[in-house]
Amino acid sequence: MTAFTPTHRSKVKRLHERGRYDEESVFAILDAGILAHIGYVIDGQPYVTPTAYWRRGRTLYWHGSSASRMLRTQKVGIPVCVTVSLLDGLVVARSGFHHSVNYRAVMAFGRARFVEDAKEKEAELDYFIERIYPGRVATLRPVNQQELKGTTLIAMEIEEASAKVRTGEPKDDDEDYALDIWAGVIPIRQVVGAVENDPRLKAGVALPEHLRRFTDGTRFDSLVADSTGRLAKAAE
Amino acid sequence: MTAFTPTHRSKVKRLHERGRYDEESVFAILDAGILAHIGYVIDGQPYVTPTAYWRRGRTLYWHGSSASRMLRTQKVGIPVCVTVSLLDGLVVARSGFHHSVNYRAVMAFGRARFVEDAKEKEAELDYFIERIYPGRVATLRPVNQQELKGTTLIAMEIEEASAKVRTGEPKDDDEDYALDIWAGVIPIRQVVGAVENDPRLKAGVALPEHLRRFTDGTRFDSLVADSTGRLAKAAE
Repeated sequence: MTAFTPTHRSKVKRLHERGRYDEESVFAILDAGILAHIGYVIDGQPYVTPTAYWRRGRTLYWHGSSASRMLRTQKVGIPVCVTVSLLDGLVVARSGFHHSVNYRAVMAFGRARFVEDAKEKEAELDYFIERIYPGRVATLRPVNQQELKGTTLIAMEIEEASAKVRTGEPKDDDEDYALDIWAGVIPIRQVVGAVENDPRLKAGVALPEHLRRFTDGTRFDSLVADSTGRLAKAAE
Repeated sequence: MTAFTPTHRSKVKRLHERGRYDEESVFAILDAGILAHIGYVIDGQPYVTPTAYWRRGRTLYWHGSSASRMLRTQKVGIPVCVTVSLLDGLVVARSGFHHSVNYRAVMAFGRARFVEDAKEKEAELDYFIERIYPGRVATLRPVNQQELKGTTLIAMEIEEASAKVRTGEPKDDDEDYALDIWAGVIPIRQVVGAVENDPRLKAGVALPEHLRRFTDGTRFDSLVADSTGRLAKAAE
Protein backbone atom coordinates (compact mmCIF):
# COMPACT_ATOMS: atom_id res chain seq x y z
CA MET A 1 0.00 0.00 0.00
CA THR A 2 1.50 3.32 -1.08
CA ALA A 3 1.27 5.91 1.65
CA PHE A 4 2.26 9.46 2.45
CA THR A 5 4.81 9.86 5.22
CA PRO A 6 3.34 12.01 7.95
CA THR A 7 5.58 14.64 9.52
CA HIS A 8 4.90 17.23 12.18
CA ARG A 9 2.98 19.17 9.51
CA SER A 10 0.53 16.52 8.35
CA LYS A 11 0.23 14.12 11.27
CA VAL A 12 -3.29 14.04 12.67
CA LYS A 13 -2.88 15.10 16.29
CA ARG A 14 -6.38 15.63 17.60
CA LEU A 15 -8.29 12.31 17.68
CA HIS A 16 -5.34 10.72 15.90
CA GLU A 17 -7.11 7.37 15.60
CA ARG A 18 -9.18 8.99 12.84
CA GLY A 19 -6.08 9.72 10.74
CA ARG A 20 -5.08 7.83 7.59
CA TYR A 21 -2.05 8.33 5.35
CA ASP A 22 -2.43 5.75 2.60
CA GLU A 23 -2.93 7.00 -0.96
CA GLU A 24 -6.13 5.01 -1.36
CA SER A 25 -7.88 6.77 1.54
CA VAL A 26 -6.56 10.20 0.57
CA PHE A 27 -7.36 9.86 -3.13
CA ALA A 28 -10.86 8.43 -2.52
CA ILE A 29 -11.83 11.62 -0.68
CA LEU A 30 -10.12 13.94 -3.16
CA ASP A 31 -11.87 12.20 -6.05
CA ALA A 32 -15.34 12.44 -4.47
CA GLY A 33 -15.26 16.24 -4.04
CA ILE A 34 -15.10 19.16 -6.44
CA LEU A 35 -14.67 22.08 -4.01
CA ALA A 36 -11.42 22.61 -2.10
CA HIS A 37 -10.44 25.27 0.40
CA ILE A 38 -7.01 26.61 -0.48
CA GLY A 39 -5.00 28.19 2.31
CA TYR A 40 -2.13 30.55 1.60
CA VAL A 41 -0.32 33.36 3.37
CA ILE A 42 0.37 36.95 2.36
CA ASP A 43 2.41 39.07 4.76
CA GLY A 44 1.59 36.79 7.66
CA GLN A 45 -2.15 36.95 6.96
CA PRO A 46 -3.88 33.64 6.16
CA TYR A 47 -6.44 33.46 3.35
CA VAL A 48 -8.77 30.56 2.62
CA THR A 49 -10.36 30.53 -0.83
CA PRO A 50 -12.96 27.98 -1.91
CA THR A 51 -12.34 26.78 -5.44
CA ALA A 52 -13.00 23.86 -7.78
CA TYR A 53 -10.09 21.42 -8.09
CA TRP A 54 -9.08 18.08 -9.53
CA ARG A 55 -6.36 15.48 -8.99
CA ARG A 56 -4.03 13.60 -11.34
CA GLY A 57 -1.78 11.13 -9.56
CA ARG A 58 -0.11 13.02 -6.73
CA THR A 59 -0.84 16.42 -8.28
CA LEU A 60 -3.74 18.73 -7.46
CA TYR A 61 -4.95 21.37 -9.93
CA TRP A 62 -7.17 24.42 -9.68
CA HIS A 63 -7.71 27.42 -11.87
CA GLY A 64 -8.92 30.98 -11.93
CA SER A 65 -8.22 34.32 -13.48
CA SER A 66 -4.68 35.68 -13.31
CA ALA A 67 -6.20 38.75 -11.66
CA SER A 68 -6.83 36.73 -8.54
CA ARG A 69 -4.79 37.69 -5.52
CA MET A 70 -4.18 34.08 -4.67
CA LEU A 71 -2.77 33.23 -8.04
CA ARG A 72 -0.58 36.29 -8.26
CA THR A 73 0.90 35.33 -4.94
CA GLN A 74 1.37 31.73 -5.88
CA LYS A 75 3.39 32.76 -8.92
CA VAL A 76 6.47 32.76 -6.72
CA GLY A 77 5.62 29.30 -5.39
CA ILE A 78 4.45 29.87 -1.85
CA PRO A 79 3.44 26.94 0.37
CA VAL A 80 -0.25 26.10 0.34
CA CYS A 81 -2.59 23.82 2.19
CA VAL A 82 -5.47 22.32 0.21
CA THR A 83 -8.31 20.98 2.33
CA VAL A 84 -11.28 19.01 1.02
CA SER A 85 -14.08 18.02 3.35
CA LEU A 86 -17.34 16.16 2.91
CA LEU A 87 -20.00 16.34 5.61
CA ASP A 88 -21.72 12.97 6.04
CA GLY A 89 -23.93 13.35 9.06
CA LEU A 90 -24.86 14.78 12.43
CA VAL A 91 -23.91 12.66 15.43
CA VAL A 92 -26.56 13.21 18.06
CA ALA A 93 -25.36 12.10 21.49
CA ARG A 94 -26.76 11.87 25.04
CA SER A 95 -24.60 14.75 26.31
CA GLY A 96 -23.71 18.02 24.63
CA PHE A 97 -20.05 17.13 24.86
CA HIS A 98 -20.32 14.07 22.61
CA HIS A 99 -22.33 15.67 19.81
CA SER A 100 -20.22 15.48 16.69
CA VAL A 101 -20.34 15.21 12.91
CA ASN A 102 -19.46 12.41 10.52
CA TYR A 103 -17.13 13.59 7.79
CA ARG A 104 -14.34 12.73 5.39
CA ALA A 105 -11.54 15.29 5.08
CA VAL A 106 -8.10 15.59 3.50
CA MET A 107 -5.38 18.15 4.20
CA ALA A 108 -2.73 18.21 1.50
CA PHE A 109 0.48 20.24 1.64
CA GLY A 110 2.79 21.38 -1.10
CA ARG A 111 4.01 24.29 -3.17
CA ALA A 112 1.87 25.71 -5.92
CA ARG A 113 3.28 26.40 -9.38
CA PHE A 114 1.83 27.83 -12.56
CA VAL A 115 1.18 25.48 -15.46
CA GLU A 116 2.48 27.50 -18.40
CA ASP A 117 2.45 25.02 -21.28
CA ALA A 118 -0.66 25.60 -23.43
CA LYS A 119 -1.07 21.93 -24.37
CA GLU A 120 -0.82 20.73 -20.77
CA LYS A 121 -3.19 23.48 -19.76
CA GLU A 122 -5.79 22.47 -22.31
CA ALA A 123 -5.50 18.79 -21.42
CA GLU A 124 -5.98 19.52 -17.74
CA LEU A 125 -8.96 21.82 -18.24
CA ASP A 126 -10.56 19.12 -20.40
CA TYR A 127 -9.92 16.55 -17.68
CA PHE A 128 -11.63 18.79 -15.13
CA ILE A 129 -14.80 18.84 -17.24
CA GLU A 130 -14.60 15.14 -18.12
CA ARG A 131 -14.28 14.08 -14.52
CA ILE A 132 -17.64 15.64 -13.71
CA TYR A 133 -19.35 15.29 -17.11
CA PRO A 134 -17.70 12.37 -18.93
CA GLY A 135 -18.23 12.69 -22.68
CA ARG A 136 -18.94 16.42 -22.64
CA VAL A 137 -15.69 17.91 -23.96
CA ALA A 138 -16.18 16.42 -27.43
CA THR A 139 -19.58 18.15 -27.68
CA LEU A 140 -18.37 21.63 -26.75
CA ARG A 141 -17.28 24.63 -28.75
CA PRO A 142 -13.48 24.15 -28.59
CA VAL A 143 -11.39 26.36 -26.33
CA ASN A 144 -9.68 29.27 -28.08
CA GLN A 145 -6.24 30.78 -27.57
CA GLN A 146 -7.58 33.84 -25.81
CA GLU A 147 -9.40 31.70 -23.27
CA LEU A 148 -6.37 29.51 -22.66
CA LYS A 149 -4.29 32.62 -22.14
CA GLY A 150 -6.87 34.10 -19.79
CA THR A 151 -7.05 30.98 -17.65
CA THR A 152 -4.47 30.56 -14.96
CA LEU A 153 -3.87 26.96 -14.07
CA ILE A 154 -2.18 26.08 -10.81
CA ALA A 155 -0.65 22.73 -9.93
CA MET A 156 0.56 21.46 -6.59
CA GLU A 157 2.45 18.20 -6.15
CA ILE A 158 1.27 16.73 -2.87
CA GLU A 159 4.31 16.53 -0.58
CA GLU A 160 2.31 15.30 2.39
CA ALA A 161 -1.32 14.54 3.00
CA SER A 162 -3.53 13.11 5.68
CA ALA A 163 -7.12 11.97 5.66
CA LYS A 164 -9.38 12.20 8.67
CA VAL A 165 -12.64 10.31 8.78
CA ARG A 166 -15.41 9.89 11.33
CA THR A 167 -18.22 7.43 10.71
CA GLY A 168 -20.93 5.74 12.70
CA GLU A 169 -22.84 6.21 15.91
CA PRO A 170 -22.18 8.48 18.89
CA LYS A 171 -19.57 7.50 21.48
CA ASP A 172 -21.22 8.35 24.76
CA ASP A 173 -19.90 7.95 28.30
CA ASP A 174 -20.62 4.44 29.58
CA GLU A 175 -23.04 5.55 32.29
CA ASP A 176 -25.02 7.74 29.86
CA TYR A 177 -26.29 4.78 27.80
CA ALA A 178 -28.78 4.08 30.63
CA LEU A 179 -30.43 7.50 30.20
CA ASP A 180 -33.81 8.00 28.52
CA ILE A 181 -32.27 10.24 25.85
CA TRP A 182 -32.53 9.60 22.15
CA ALA A 183 -29.19 9.27 20.33
CA GLY A 184 -28.26 8.36 16.80
CA VAL A 185 -27.11 9.71 13.47
CA ILE A 186 -28.82 12.07 11.06
CA PRO A 187 -27.18 11.42 7.69
CA ILE A 188 -26.37 14.41 5.48
CA ARG A 189 -25.71 14.03 1.79
CA GLN A 190 -25.18 16.26 -1.21
CA VAL A 191 -27.62 15.45 -3.98
CA VAL A 192 -28.38 16.62 -7.47
CA GLY A 193 -31.64 18.50 -8.15
CA ALA A 194 -33.82 18.55 -11.26
CA VAL A 195 -31.77 19.75 -14.22
CA GLU A 196 -32.71 23.28 -15.39
CA ASN A 197 -32.48 24.34 -19.04
CA ASP A 198 -30.75 27.64 -19.76
CA PRO A 199 -33.61 30.10 -20.50
CA ARG A 200 -31.70 30.95 -23.70
CA LEU A 201 -31.34 27.31 -24.76
CA LYS A 202 -31.67 26.95 -28.54
CA ALA A 203 -35.00 25.40 -29.53
CA GLY A 204 -34.79 21.67 -30.16
CA VAL A 205 -31.62 21.06 -28.12
CA ALA A 206 -32.29 18.22 -25.68
CA LEU A 207 -30.39 17.16 -22.58
CA PRO A 208 -27.49 15.07 -23.96
CA GLU A 209 -26.92 11.44 -23.04
CA HIS A 210 -23.79 12.31 -21.02
CA LEU A 211 -25.82 14.40 -18.55
CA ARG A 212 -28.64 11.90 -18.03
CA ARG A 213 -26.97 10.40 -14.97
CA PHE A 214 -27.66 13.66 -13.11
CA THR A 215 -31.13 12.64 -11.98
CA ASP A 216 -32.99 14.39 -9.18
CA GLY A 217 -31.96 12.98 -5.80
CA THR A 218 -28.75 11.18 -6.88
CA ARG A 219 -25.82 11.54 -4.50
CA PHE A 220 -23.38 14.01 -5.98
CA ASP A 221 -20.24 12.64 -4.29
CA SER A 222 -21.01 9.16 -5.68
CA LEU A 223 -21.52 10.52 -9.19
CA VAL A 224 -18.21 12.39 -9.06
CA ALA A 225 -16.28 9.54 -7.44
CA ASP A 226 -17.63 7.15 -10.06
CA SER A 227 -16.77 9.19 -13.16
CA THR A 228 -13.43 10.36 -11.73
CA GLY A 229 -12.51 6.80 -10.81
CA ARG A 230 -13.27 5.47 -14.28
CA LEU A 231 -11.26 8.28 -15.88
CA ALA A 232 -8.30 7.68 -13.56
CA LYS A 233 -8.39 3.95 -14.27
CA ALA A 234 -8.49 4.53 -18.05
CA ALA A 235 -5.38 6.73 -17.76
CA GLU A 236 -3.33 4.06 -15.93
CA MET B 1 -27.96 48.80 6.14
CA THR B 2 -25.01 47.84 8.37
CA ALA B 3 -22.02 46.72 6.36
CA PHE B 4 -18.42 45.65 6.74
CA THR B 5 -15.86 48.04 5.31
CA PRO B 6 -13.80 46.20 2.72
CA THR B 7 -10.06 46.80 2.73
CA HIS B 8 -7.30 45.35 0.59
CA ARG B 9 -7.67 42.16 2.66
CA SER B 10 -11.38 41.48 2.23
CA LYS B 11 -12.31 43.22 -1.01
CA VAL B 12 -13.50 40.74 -3.64
CA LYS B 13 -11.07 41.22 -6.52
CA ARG B 14 -11.80 38.41 -8.92
CA LEU B 15 -15.31 38.78 -10.41
CA HIS B 16 -15.88 41.66 -8.01
CA GLU B 17 -19.50 42.11 -9.12
CA ARG B 18 -20.23 38.99 -7.09
CA GLY B 19 -19.00 40.58 -3.85
CA ARG B 20 -21.22 41.81 -1.03
CA TYR B 21 -20.25 43.46 2.25
CA ASP B 22 -23.54 44.06 4.07
CA GLU B 23 -24.13 42.21 7.34
CA GLU B 24 -27.37 40.73 6.08
CA SER B 25 -25.69 38.93 3.15
CA VAL B 26 -22.70 37.82 5.23
CA PHE B 27 -24.76 36.63 8.20
CA ALA B 28 -27.32 34.78 6.03
CA ILE B 29 -24.54 32.57 4.66
CA LEU B 30 -22.82 32.08 8.02
CA ASP B 31 -26.15 31.10 9.60
CA ALA B 32 -26.98 28.53 6.90
CA GLY B 33 -23.75 26.51 7.31
CA ILE B 34 -22.27 24.48 10.14
CA LEU B 35 -18.83 23.65 8.70
CA ALA B 36 -16.15 26.33 8.33
CA HIS B 37 -12.61 26.12 7.00
CA ILE B 38 -10.26 27.89 9.39
CA GLY B 39 -7.01 29.18 7.96
CA TYR B 40 -4.02 29.96 10.19
CA VAL B 41 -0.26 30.17 9.88
CA ILE B 42 2.53 28.45 11.79
CA ASP B 43 6.10 29.35 10.85
CA GLY B 44 4.98 30.59 7.44
CA GLN B 45 3.09 27.38 6.69
CA PRO B 46 -0.65 27.73 6.06
CA TYR B 47 -3.08 25.22 7.58
CA VAL B 48 -6.76 24.87 6.74
CA THR B 49 -8.86 22.93 9.24
CA PRO B 50 -12.53 22.07 8.69
CA THR B 51 -14.54 22.53 11.85
CA ALA B 52 -18.06 23.18 13.12
CA TYR B 53 -18.76 26.82 14.01
CA TRP B 54 -21.48 29.24 14.99
CA ARG B 55 -22.06 32.99 15.03
CA ARG B 56 -23.35 35.43 17.64
CA GLY B 57 -23.58 39.00 16.40
CA ARG B 58 -20.21 39.83 14.85
CA THR B 59 -18.44 36.99 16.67
CA LEU B 60 -17.65 33.53 15.31
CA TYR B 61 -17.07 30.57 17.61
CA TRP B 62 -15.61 27.11 17.17
CA HIS B 63 -14.33 24.50 19.54
CA GLY B 64 -12.15 21.45 19.88
CA SER B 65 -9.73 19.79 22.24
CA SER B 66 -6.91 21.85 23.72
CA ALA B 67 -4.55 19.26 22.25
CA SER B 68 -5.25 20.61 18.77
CA ARG B 69 -2.34 22.28 17.07
CA MET B 70 -4.58 25.00 15.77
CA LEU B 71 -5.89 25.90 19.18
CA ARG B 72 -2.53 25.87 20.85
CA THR B 73 -1.28 28.27 18.23
CA GLN B 74 -4.32 30.49 18.50
CA LYS B 75 -3.73 30.86 22.21
CA VAL B 76 -1.41 33.72 21.40
CA GLY B 77 -4.02 35.36 19.19
CA ILE B 78 -2.78 34.83 15.67
CA PRO B 79 -4.74 36.17 12.70
CA VAL B 80 -7.16 33.72 11.14
CA CYS B 81 -9.39 33.55 8.09
CA VAL B 82 -12.69 31.71 8.47
CA THR B 83 -14.29 30.64 5.21
CA VAL B 84 -17.75 29.14 4.84
CA SER B 85 -18.97 27.97 1.46
CA LEU B 86 -22.15 26.34 0.23
CA LEU B 87 -22.24 24.68 -3.18
CA ASP B 88 -25.56 25.32 -4.92
CA GLY B 89 -25.13 23.98 -8.43
CA LEU B 90 -23.16 23.12 -11.50
CA VAL B 91 -23.25 25.70 -14.29
CA VAL B 92 -23.05 23.81 -17.56
CA ALA B 93 -22.06 26.11 -20.43
CA ARG B 94 -21.56 25.86 -24.20
CA SER B 95 -17.76 26.19 -23.93
CA GLY B 96 -15.39 24.68 -21.39
CA PHE B 97 -14.27 28.15 -20.39
CA HIS B 98 -17.70 29.21 -19.10
CA HIS B 99 -18.43 26.13 -17.01
CA SER B 100 -18.79 27.27 -13.44
CA VAL B 101 -20.50 26.56 -10.14
CA ASN B 102 -23.21 28.37 -8.22
CA TYR B 103 -22.23 28.98 -4.63
CA ARG B 104 -22.50 31.18 -1.57
CA ALA B 105 -19.28 31.90 0.32
CA VAL B 106 -18.03 34.13 3.11
CA MET B 107 -14.45 34.98 4.04
CA ALA B 108 -14.18 36.50 7.52
CA PHE B 109 -10.99 37.91 9.02
CA GLY B 110 -10.04 38.54 12.61
CA ARG B 111 -7.95 37.40 15.54
CA ALA B 112 -8.87 34.33 17.51
CA ARG B 113 -8.99 34.36 21.29
CA PHE B 114 -9.75 31.73 23.91
CA VAL B 115 -13.03 31.95 25.79
CA GLU B 116 -11.94 31.22 29.36
CA ASP B 117 -15.02 32.03 31.41
CA ALA B 118 -16.85 28.79 32.28
CA LYS B 119 -20.31 30.37 32.21
CA GLU B 120 -19.78 31.98 28.82
CA LYS B 121 -18.31 28.72 27.55
CA GLU B 122 -21.31 26.71 28.67
CA ALA B 123 -23.77 29.23 27.22
CA GLU B 124 -22.00 29.18 23.86
CA LEU B 125 -21.77 25.40 23.65
CA ASP B 126 -25.49 25.21 24.43
CA TYR B 127 -26.18 27.76 21.70
CA PHE B 128 -24.25 25.66 19.21
CA ILE B 129 -26.51 22.66 19.90
CA GLU B 130 -29.69 24.75 20.03
CA ARG B 131 -29.01 26.36 16.67
CA ILE B 132 -29.06 22.96 14.98
CA TYR B 133 -31.43 21.08 17.32
CA PRO B 134 -33.66 23.69 18.98
CA GLY B 135 -35.09 22.33 22.23
CA ARG B 136 -32.45 19.64 22.68
CA VAL B 137 -30.24 21.11 25.42
CA ALA B 138 -33.00 20.85 28.05
CA THR B 139 -33.32 17.12 27.35
CA LEU B 140 -29.60 16.27 27.68
CA ARG B 141 -27.46 15.02 30.53
CA PRO B 142 -26.00 18.36 31.70
CA VAL B 143 -22.40 19.22 30.94
CA ASN B 144 -19.94 18.55 33.78
CA GLN B 145 -16.94 20.54 34.93
CA GLN B 146 -14.44 18.10 33.48
CA GLU B 147 -16.04 18.38 30.03
CA LEU B 148 -16.13 22.17 30.21
CA LYS B 149 -12.47 22.16 31.17
CA GLY B 150 -11.60 19.74 28.37
CA THR B 151 -13.37 21.81 25.75
CA THR B 152 -11.45 24.65 24.22
CA LEU B 153 -13.70 27.37 22.91
CA ILE B 154 -12.35 29.89 20.43
CA ALA B 155 -13.95 33.20 19.54
CA MET B 156 -13.13 35.57 16.71
CA GLU B 157 -14.64 39.03 16.38
CA ILE B 158 -15.13 39.62 12.68
CA GLU B 159 -12.98 42.61 11.73
CA GLU B 160 -13.76 42.33 8.05
CA ALA B 161 -15.85 40.02 5.94
CA SER B 162 -17.01 39.63 2.39
CA ALA B 163 -19.62 37.42 0.81
CA LYS B 164 -19.36 36.13 -2.75
CA VAL B 165 -22.34 34.63 -4.48
CA ARG B 166 -23.01 33.20 -7.92
CA THR B 167 -26.52 32.23 -8.95
CA GLY B 168 -28.38 31.46 -12.14
CA GLU B 169 -27.68 30.33 -15.64
CA PRO B 170 -24.42 30.17 -17.62
CA LYS B 171 -22.98 33.35 -19.15
CA ASP B 172 -21.84 32.22 -22.56
CA ASP B 173 -20.17 34.21 -25.32
CA ASP B 174 -22.82 35.91 -27.50
CA GLU B 175 -22.05 33.90 -30.62
CA ASP B 176 -22.17 30.58 -28.73
CA TYR B 177 -25.91 30.84 -27.99
CA ALA B 178 -26.56 29.85 -31.59
CA LEU B 179 -24.79 26.49 -31.15
CA ASP B 180 -26.63 23.17 -30.80
CA ILE B 181 -25.13 22.58 -27.36
CA TRP B 182 -27.17 21.98 -24.25
CA ALA B 183 -26.56 24.44 -21.42
CA GLY B 184 -28.18 24.98 -18.08
CA VAL B 185 -27.85 24.43 -14.36
CA ILE B 186 -27.70 21.22 -12.34
CA PRO B 187 -28.72 22.20 -8.82
CA ILE B 188 -26.82 20.67 -5.90
CA ARG B 189 -28.22 20.66 -2.40
CA GLN B 190 -27.34 19.21 0.98
CA VAL B 191 -30.19 17.15 2.37
CA VAL B 192 -30.95 15.15 5.45
CA GLY B 193 -31.26 11.36 5.21
CA ALA B 194 -33.44 8.97 7.19
CA VAL B 195 -32.64 9.29 10.89
CA GLU B 196 -30.74 6.27 12.31
CA ASN B 197 -31.16 5.10 15.90
CA ASP B 198 -27.99 4.45 17.90
CA PRO B 199 -27.67 0.62 18.00
CA ARG B 200 -27.30 1.00 21.77
CA LEU B 201 -30.44 3.14 22.12
CA LYS B 202 -32.33 2.29 25.32
CA ALA B 203 -35.52 0.34 24.63
CA GLY B 204 -38.60 2.50 24.51
CA VAL B 205 -36.81 5.79 23.74
CA ALA B 206 -38.48 7.38 20.71
CA LEU B 207 -37.23 10.14 18.42
CA PRO B 208 -38.06 13.34 20.33
CA GLU B 209 -40.32 16.05 18.98
CA HIS B 210 -37.37 18.47 18.54
CA LEU B 211 -35.73 16.17 15.96
CA ARG B 212 -38.85 15.47 13.92
CA ARG B 213 -38.07 18.29 11.47
CA PHE B 214 -35.11 16.26 10.21
CA THR B 215 -37.12 14.33 7.65
CA ASP B 216 -35.53 12.42 4.79
CA GLY B 217 -34.89 14.73 1.84
CA THR B 218 -35.23 18.09 3.66
CA ARG B 219 -32.64 20.70 2.72
CA PHE B 220 -30.10 20.91 5.50
CA ASP B 221 -29.07 24.54 4.89
CA SER B 222 -32.70 25.64 5.11
CA LEU B 223 -33.23 23.73 8.37
CA VAL B 224 -30.12 25.31 9.90
CA ALA B 225 -30.86 28.81 8.60
CA ASP B 226 -34.40 28.56 9.95
CA SER B 227 -33.55 27.46 13.50
CA THR B 228 -30.50 29.72 13.73
CA GLY B 229 -32.56 32.67 12.51
CA ARG B 230 -35.30 32.11 15.08
CA LEU B 231 -32.72 31.79 17.87
CA ALA B 232 -30.91 34.96 16.77
CA LYS B 233 -34.21 36.87 16.61
CA ALA B 234 -35.22 35.66 20.09
CA ALA B 235 -31.90 36.94 21.48
CA GLU B 236 -32.34 40.47 20.09
